[in-house]
Amino acid sequence: MLNVLVMMMVGLWTREACGLDNGLALTPPMGWLAWERFRCNIDCDNDPDNCISEHLFMKMADHMVSDGFLAAGYDVVSLDDCWMSHQRDNNGRLQPDPDRFPSGIKALSDYMHSKGLKLGIYEDYGNFTCGGYPGILGHLETDAQTFADWGVDYVKLDGCYANPDDMDQGYPMFGQYLNKTGRPMVYSCSWPDYQQNPNYNLIVPVCNLWRNYADIEDSWASVTDIMDHYADHQDQLSPLAGPGHWNDPDMLIIGNFGLSYEQSRTQMAVWAVLAAPLLMSVDLRTIRPEYRDILLNPAVIAVNQDPLGIQGTRVSKDNNIEIWTRPISPVHGDDHSFAVAILNRGDGGTPDNVELEPGKVGLNAVNGYNITDLFDKVTHGVVKPTDTITLQVNPSGVVLLGCVVMAG
Amino acid sequence: MLNVLVMMMVGLWTREACGLDNGLALTPPMGWLAWERFRCNIDCDNDPDNCISEHLFMKMADHMVSDGFLAAGYDVVSLDDCWMSHQRDNNGRLQPDPDRFPSGIKALSDYMHSKGLKLGIYEDYGNFTCGGYPGILGHLETDAQTFADWGVDYVKLDGCYANPDDMDQGYPMFGQYLNKTGRPMVYSCSWPDYQQNPNYNLIVPVCNLWRNYADIEDSWASVTDIMDHYADHQDQLSPLAGPGHWNDPDMLIIGNFGLSYEQSRTQMAVWAVLAAPLLMSVDLRTIRPEYRDILLNPAVIAVNQDPLGIQGTRVSKDNNIEIWTRPISPVHGDDHSFAVAILNRGDGGTPDNVELEPGKVGLNAVNGYNITDLFDKVTHGVVKPTDTITLQVNPSGVVLLGCVVMAG
Repeated sequence: MLNVLVMMMVGLWTREACGLDNGLALTPPMGWLAWERFRCNIDCDNDPDNCISEHLFMKMADHMVSDGFLAAGYDVVSLDDCWMSHQRDNNGRLQPDPDRFPSGIKALSDYMHSKGLKLGIYEDYGNFTCGGYPGILGHLETDAQTFADWGVDYVKLDGCYANPDDMDQGYPMFGQYLNKTGRPMVYSCSWPDYQQNPNYNLIVPVCNLWRNYADIEDSWASVTDIMDHYADHQDQLSPLAGPGHWNDPDMLIIGNFGLSYEQSRTQMAVWAVLAAPLLMSVDLRTIRPEYRDILLNPAVIAVNQDPLGIQGTRVSKDNNIEIWTRPISPVHGDDHSFAVAILNRGDGGTPDNVELEPGKVGLNAVNGYNITDLFDKVTHGVVKPTDTITLQVNPSGVVLLGCVVMAG
Repeated sequence: MLNVLVMMMVGLWTREACGLDNGLALTPPMGWLAWERFRCNIDCDNDPDNCISEHLFMKMADHMVSDGFLAAGYDVVSLDDCWMSHQRDNNGRLQPDPDRFPSGIKALSDYMHSKGLKLGIYEDYGNFTCGGYPGILGHLETDAQTFADWGVDYVKLDGCYANPDDMDQGYPMFGQYLNKTGRPMVYSCSWPDYQQNPNYNLIVPVCNLWRNYADIEDSWASVTDIMDHYADHQDQLSPLAGPGHWNDPDMLIIGNFGLSYEQSRTQMAVWAVLAAPLLMSVDLRTIRPEYRDILLNPAVIAVNQDPLGIQGTRVSKDNNIEIWTRPISPVHGDDHSFAVAILNRGDGGTPDNVELEPGKVGLNAVNGYNITDLFDKVTHGVVKPTDTITLQVNPSGVVLLGCVVMAG
């Protein structure tokens, strides 16, 4: 039913589309993005290993391949702010900082492509980027063409130093220029995040993904705040998502300084249920193996990348226990399979027992579901809608279930 | 100077002492306490490995010895609430739950003693414990004698279901009964935590440690809230601490579900600086090695156990960066050595550089300090009061320095 609605809305938007029509991001983008972990560190003299430089991105690319991230589906390595020179060149073209990117961006994209990766880049729909580097205003066509010439595969367009009222025209226009280059580039928009009442009828047909809410920070408080935003606004936001167009709750901070192991699994599970882009921002050189395993979990990634592209919702909230579900494939008749995330938002020290009755959270297929714990590999067997299974859920942790609908 | 003041106050209290005089806890108690991690789980039918039972405490005792905790100084294994039967026996004596402690508490303390450990127990100055089991009211002398007969070494006395106004008489009275048994038992009081304006002149001479503030929960938010409480009230609280009598900011939650690795180091460092009891509450059977290493770090434990017993303070707070210092031994002339904790309370994703000038945070010895990073073993050499060293401090993390004063 929800799926039918989504398909109808996609049809509507497609007819109205005036911006991007690139056939990309049919499942949520997966990759690595510099910002959350490396910010605007440009101090290569004192911190050569961590400053924003071609060296950093090449290193991350190496780890993307050698440590299994590319094989798992993470295929973009993306710059964020602070890669540029403060000056455009004599032709008005952007140029990278010459000290930190001496080989140029084309060489960097060549490096990515040689490894089977894609290159992402960052610009800003305004006079300056958030970090004070040149924005695209007055240079939309030039910058789109520059990115294409450089072999860029993915463009994030931020919204600092811009008038939010101009964005409804500006973002689609830049999307048209991206299209016009003929080079397929995923288009990531910060557009709605800068507006009070974004008009998603304009945004969804134009952008492959868009940020609706504040930047993620390195804390559980930030992750839960974002989760709550998407749950509290799910009636508006969830129907927007679908193949080619996704809500973006921002980066995965798994493996950094602020999340525990349990909390990291919770972010991964909820991002999977939300059909969110999986954009890691972590130092792949030093990430601990158990956090890498969360990011690489194939069953959880499969939920995120489910081809139906339906964004899940929070279907119940009872004290500290929240249940989130996402309809996924395979489908039998009218019945979807589901991913079900049971969250324990409490901090009570000891695990809570949660009784799950599938029919109470919308899993009503009469023949039941074959249920597996996607992190811990426990099998619950076939569970009918009125059966009950008991789950132990750790404080600030999650149990993520794959529920495959049984054929008639 | 601070030390002189503390010594004067200790002298004052000793003269006024009317309660406990047991010569114990000359450094902050170290051990393992059930509550934060195992709570009041009495469901041994469905959760036999984690319910409050003699089995659980014997298992923890085994790990205390085999995994190096006893050797590191953690020598108490302590029950908390929910160990009792709901009924006293025919002589009015407390008795353990017969199903969960079939061998009795005397057998449990024998087990602890056979391993070189001590047994802690829990009761409540009120009509009931917080969990609804029998409180000591009306049975003070009996219960003190029962604990002594059982070979108990440490008593935590909570304050649920009691009138806070009665505590100024009741807690000292129970301390006298403990003394009267002739058995040395550390006396942990929840007394001030239940009062609006606790009279520490009464508390400090009577209790070996006391809880001033709310229970810790399994979250960074809880840890930081507690840290802020002790810093915000340090002018009142820090002078109270000294050999035999300690402020207790509650248990170490390191190794559980809610803290990241960085946050765990921060709790350990701040608890060391605060001369806080180090009471772990974690499942020692499953704790990950890197968290065990934090708890076992000998250099950090040495700060906590410094024989001078001076409670440290937060000496600066500049945006997200806090500096906490604690005067420790060795002392040369009038100059103490120091432990210095540099906290990054931010969640900005990437480490911050912090410049530390020892003289600006009270380290003024003219010959300087030999400075070592106590977690990461980096040596900074001899640093003079007006020198500057630069430290990289991770978000929600800490750098803990040992600063040994140089002789003239």
